[in-house]
Amino acid sequence: MDIATILGIISGFGLIVFGIGFGKLGNFIDPQSLAITIGGTLAVMVAGAPGEILKAIPKHMKIAIGGKKYDPKFYIELIVDLAQSARKNGLLSLEARAEEIEDVFLKDSVLLIVDAIDSDKVKQLMEEELNYLDERHARAFGFYELAAGTCPAFGMIGTLIGLVNMLKGLNIEGGGAGDIGPAMSTALITTFYGSLFANVVFFPIANKLKVRHAEEMLCKQMIVEGILSIQSGENPKFIKEKLISYLSEAEKADLAESAQ
Amino acid sequence: MDIATILGIISGFGLIVFGIGFGKLGNFIDPQSLAITIGGTLAVMVAGAPGEILKAIPKHMKIAIGGKKYDPKFYIELIVDLAQSARKNGLLSLEARAEEIEDVFLKDSVLLIVDAIDSDKVKQLMEEELNYLDERHARAFGFYELAAGTCPAFGMIGTLIGLVNMLKGLNIEGGGAGDIGPAMSTALITTFYGSLFANVVFFPIANKLKVRHAEEMLCKQMIVEGILSIQSGENPKFIKEKLISYLSEAEKADLAESAQ
Amino acid sequence: MDIATILGIISGFGLIVFGIGFGKLGNFIDPQSLAITIGGTLAVMVAGAPGEILKAIPKHMKIAIGGKKYDPKFYIELIVDLAQSARKNGLLSLEARAEEIEDVFLKDSVLLIVDAIDSDKVKQLMEEELNYLDERHARAFGFYELAAGTCPAFGMIGTLIGLVNMLKGLNIEGGGAGDIGPAMSTALITTFYGSLFANVVFFPIANKLKVRHAEEMLCKQMIVEGILSIQSGENPKFIKEKLISYLSEAEKADLAESAQ
Amino acid sequence: MDIATILGIISGFGLIVFGIGFGKLGNFIDPQSLAITIGGTLAVMVAGAPGEILKAIPKHMKIAIGGKKYDPKFYIELIVDLAQSARKNGLLSLEARAEEIEDVFLKDSVLLIVDAIDSDKVKQLMEEELNYLDERHARAFGFYELAAGTCPAFGMIGTLIGLVNMLKGLNIEGGGAGDIGPAMSTALITTFYGSLFANVVFFPIANKLKVRHAEEMLCKQMIVEGILSIQSGENPKFIKEKLISYLSEAEKADLAESAQ
Amino acid sequence: MDIATILGIISGFGLIVFGIGFGKLGNFIDPQSLAITIGGTLAVMVAGAPGEILKAIPKHMKIAIGGKKYDPKFYIELIVDLAQSARKNGLLSLEARAEEIEDVFLKDSVLLIVDAIDSDKVKQLMEEELNYLDERHARAFGFYELAAGTCPAFGMIGTLIGLVNMLKGLNIEGGGAGDIGPAMSTALITTFYGSLFANVVFFPIANKLKVRHAEEMLCKQMIVEGILSIQSGENPKFIKEKLISYLSEAEKADLAESAQ
Repeated sequence: MDIATILGIISGFGLIVFGIGFGKLGNFIDPQSLAITIGGTLAVMVAGAPGEILKAIPKHMKIAIGGKKYDPKFYIELIVDLAQSARKNGLLSLEARAEEIEDVFLKDSVLLIVDAIDSDKVKQLMEEELNYLDERHARAFGFYELAAGTCPAFGMIGTLIGLVNMLKGLNIEGGGAGDIGPAMSTALITTFYGSLFANVVFFPIANKLKVRHAEEMLCKQMIVEGILSIQSGENPKFIKEKLISYLSEAEKADLAESAQ
Repeated sequence: MDIATILGIISGFGLIVFGIGFGKLGNFIDPQSLAITIGGTLAVMVAGAPGEILKAIPKHMKIAIGGKKYDPKFYIELIVDLAQSARKNGLLSLEARAEEIEDVFLKDSVLLIVDAIDSDKVKQLMEEELNYLDERHARAFGFYELAAGTCPAFGMIGTLIGLVNMLKGLNIEGGGAGDIGPAMSTALITTFYGSLFANVVFFPIANKLKVRHAEEMLCKQMIVEGILSIQSGENPKFIKEKLISYLSEAEKADLAESAQ
Repeated sequence: MDIATILGIISGFGLIVFGIGFGKLGNFIDPQSLAITIGGTLAVMVAGAPGEILKAIPKHMKIAIGGKKYDPKFYIELIVDLAQSARKNGLLSLEARAEEIEDVFLKDSVLLIVDAIDSDKVKQLMEEELNYLDERHARAFGFYELAAGTCPAFGMIGTLIGLVNMLKGLNIEGGGAGDIGPAMSTALITTFYGSLFANVVFFPIANKLKVRHAEEMLCKQMIVEGILSIQSGENPKFIKEKLISYLSEAEKADLAESAQ
Repeated sequence: MDIATILGIISGFGLIVFGIGFGKLGNFIDPQSLAITIGGTLAVMVAGAPGEILKAIPKHMKIAIGGKKYDPKFYIELIVDLAQSARKNGLLSLEARAEEIEDVFLKDSVLLIVDAIDSDKVKQLMEEELNYLDERHARAFGFYELAAGTCPAFGMIGTLIGLVNMLKGLNIEGGGAGDIGPAMSTALITTFYGSLFANVVFFPIANKLKVRHAEEMLCKQMIVEGILSIQSGENPKFIKEKLISYLSEAEKADLAESAQ
Repeated sequence: MDIATILGIISGFGLIVFGIGFGKLGNFIDPQSLAITIGGTLAVMVAGAPGEILKAIPKHMKIAIGGKKYDPKFYIELIVDLAQSARKNGLLSLEARAEEIEDVFLKDSVLLIVDAIDSDKVKQLMEEELNYLDERHARAFGFYELAAGTCPAFGMIGTLIGLVNMLKGLNIEGGGAGDIGPAMSTALITTFYGSLFANVVFFPIANKLKVRHAEEMLCKQMIVEGILSIQSGENPKFIKEKLISYLSEAEKADLAESAQ
């Protein structure tokens, strides 16, 4: 579980409720406004997005709140361990090891070098797979960023509807000014919803998916580097150093500490 | 038929109508406002866009609402089948097969390798064709995105026209305040139209065309990869694995399932 | 003449006039507002743009309204014809042909291969010239896009001037409210002008110049491809096929039709 | 200490206080508004940002106000000095020198060439490390730029809350107009906070981090260039000239002066 | 002197003054508003920008108003002249010529080929220097573009300050409405200043610096091309043709004319 995402979104909403004041919360509950803003946004997203992404929404939610999954330290250790195996017992010995590997990308990569596929081809295959992964993920972020952009637009459309309806029937000189306040209040609620959902829901999800993607890409790039190094028979110690250079200073320090 | 696009746009409009309230729908029907907003947008699009794109609008509409056409699974099977043919009966045997292929790009590609054109040249020819396809399609999305950006601008111009006309004749002290409401209401309708058409019509079309383009490009890149692999005499099983690596996890699972 | 651009801009203005209503057209004619918005935009453009672009404005206008000049079909035929000449009578025979070619870029390219310049150098020279052309043209679009962005800014500055002047002298309790309407109306006219000229004049011009540029670049890239193919002695039929792959499906069909 | 950053931010706030007027400062202190604007921004940042960046905030602050750390002149002198050592006493002599080098990247690079690693590999290793550094830093700027973008959004949400609450209870004809002023004033404070923190805090921090990053990258690129030149045994004088070409005219003049 | 920049900025301000009306100029002079808008912008720029750029502001101003300095025609003639010298008297003869060359980049480049440095290295050295020049200049434009973006933000902050102060003390029913006009007028002046300085000062400066940079880069790329061609002993006539291909049609015509 990624406490930060859940905590962030909950405390975001909490601060808004605090800003509104508990007693006035009723002013901001308006199902019709919600239908226009969120319903309209969803309708447009359904209209414009690919079916695959709509089906993957539950998976995205799980990723966004599901905690870090790709830990570079884990992969460094695993790859170095595979490199030592390969050094001692030969590349073919990795076939048995591959069985236990859960990460499908790493497993497939290990099997490629076990099959003695030409090094350039292995590299090309792995990099192409990463490119398509990158494109697919970028479309997923793009979906939530688009939702974050569409949501305030429907908020504004809702407010315009409210304003037009109010103004059309307005008769200031006939004493109608008394209705302006509450009517404008209702009209503004859709703008509020649009801004709220964009900033407290859609943008954080898009950002978190980007973070998870960056972690996954880093680990997968390490796998590419590591597998090619194992295939070319490099020294496990040197492979480790190479993979460590992918890390930040803080992670390097962290790794050095946990190694003691 | 792509149910999602049609359903999305219809339910988008439906939610707006619900937000307005059926009884007040008349407040939002104003042919003059529609003429300024949509007419103005179209006028500007005609002025700035290339003739080819204007002529292709009906085709774009058909693509946007016409359902998925490029299915990677279909292409994987077809290419692997061609690869097996080539293996058994030689590259020349593909000439007869090419006749039945409906996809013009695949057909032309097969004929290139039947003609024993040099592999580098085949690659270059196919990739150049994809590049130009990519550029042409990008101009098509760009057209609808531009329309989506121009539409609210004309909405604002319409509102400014309404406001200036109203304010010019305004005589608050002479009792003119009573006309402000209805006049402002009419002025705001163009802003409403601009925002509505941008978000419920033009953006979803642009997005759907992008989705269809991404699907087409993926399949065409698979064709390039597959045709070059067939030409170099690769094992059909290996070609299949290579093409599968273009797919998402979900599609891979899907393919594995349908293979049983 | 490019009917579309002129028709688009004229009907854009026409729709605006229709929106205003003929009788109220006088409300929107205000020379001082025009001076601030358009004058200010021009002043800033003169201040920031390179002299070459300012001098080239009449040329840009001519291009924007002057109709399609670069027709890929014309160039395909011409290049294939040159290729046949070169095949039959040798590369040197192209020297005489070059004299009749109006397109300076094609003419110079033909002379390069007549001079038996090394193929790599020909390619480099032609591609560099295209790169600089691309950069120069991009600066030209950029100029009109910048104008389109600056124009509404001056519109807003004008409106702020009007508002500040009006508010400074306002004495609501002294009965000054009656002047608010007309004064605000005048203040808003600059915003109207800014939005109008940006969307009905500057953006369409920028877009049309981009369209013309894309057509020119396509033809010039065909020339590069064609000239290099002629130099390397390729089969005219094959050159034709290669050049046709640059075209859209519609243009291909068009070409096939006109060939019958 | 980087006087400029601190001075800039302090004088930014000072000018705002001056603009408000000391006597009216109380109008702008509203803890609830602060909670919504800053609290909401932080909540969203926590929700969407990677844990590593949240932990690194104190480090970022130190960098932003901590003065220039990477001085190209220092590195030029150090690298040229190492080059002279290597020339006189051989590459192995650099091992002892490496011990005293504080910059970890330079130290590791020196050890790579002492270990007689192949030149292409050294280059690849160093450049990859720089690429990952670049990506990591870009995520850090991105964090503060995102905060600068989120802050005004929460300011607007706060203002909408204030407006809706005020308008809901408004009864103009019942004499409620007297409360509009102060209530709107409070509602606008969140917009003020959002704009203030974005422009006076988050953007300057993001910009300063970018400046520090550019300085660091320049020095590290000099190290790559220098180390590879030392390894290939180039003349120290020539290495110096090469590194100086990385500098601006002003820095070159500065260096020439200090050399006298 | 670059008349256009000065004339543009002056006539920009002139049109604004004309729009205000001479008699009402006093409405727009408010030192406190100026302190918030311009002072705040400067404070933030000082906080976030690198020291080098702050020091270079006078130099940038000189460049922006100082007229075209890099004339491609001048460089073509000079380079062709050097090429002829080299042809007749050998590369070493250029050493004496280098002494008279004022352009430091050209002079250093000539000395590189006099020193018989390897051609690939000369190319690499010169291109790297251009890359760093490009980056440094981009940071300079970026500074003025950032200022142009920050200025309206401070304008808005100033207006919010004015509005909050006015609204806080507002007592409509107590007869306070009479103060609204002048107070709002003052509040809006900062928005006016922000928009004015962004559009009439900062953006034109940024644009002019970009223009000057493009001119400088063009000439320096010609120098790279020319120097490498001289080193490889190419025909001066051919070098000239190559350099001319960098020019626009208008400049080519211009050059042809002045050659007669």
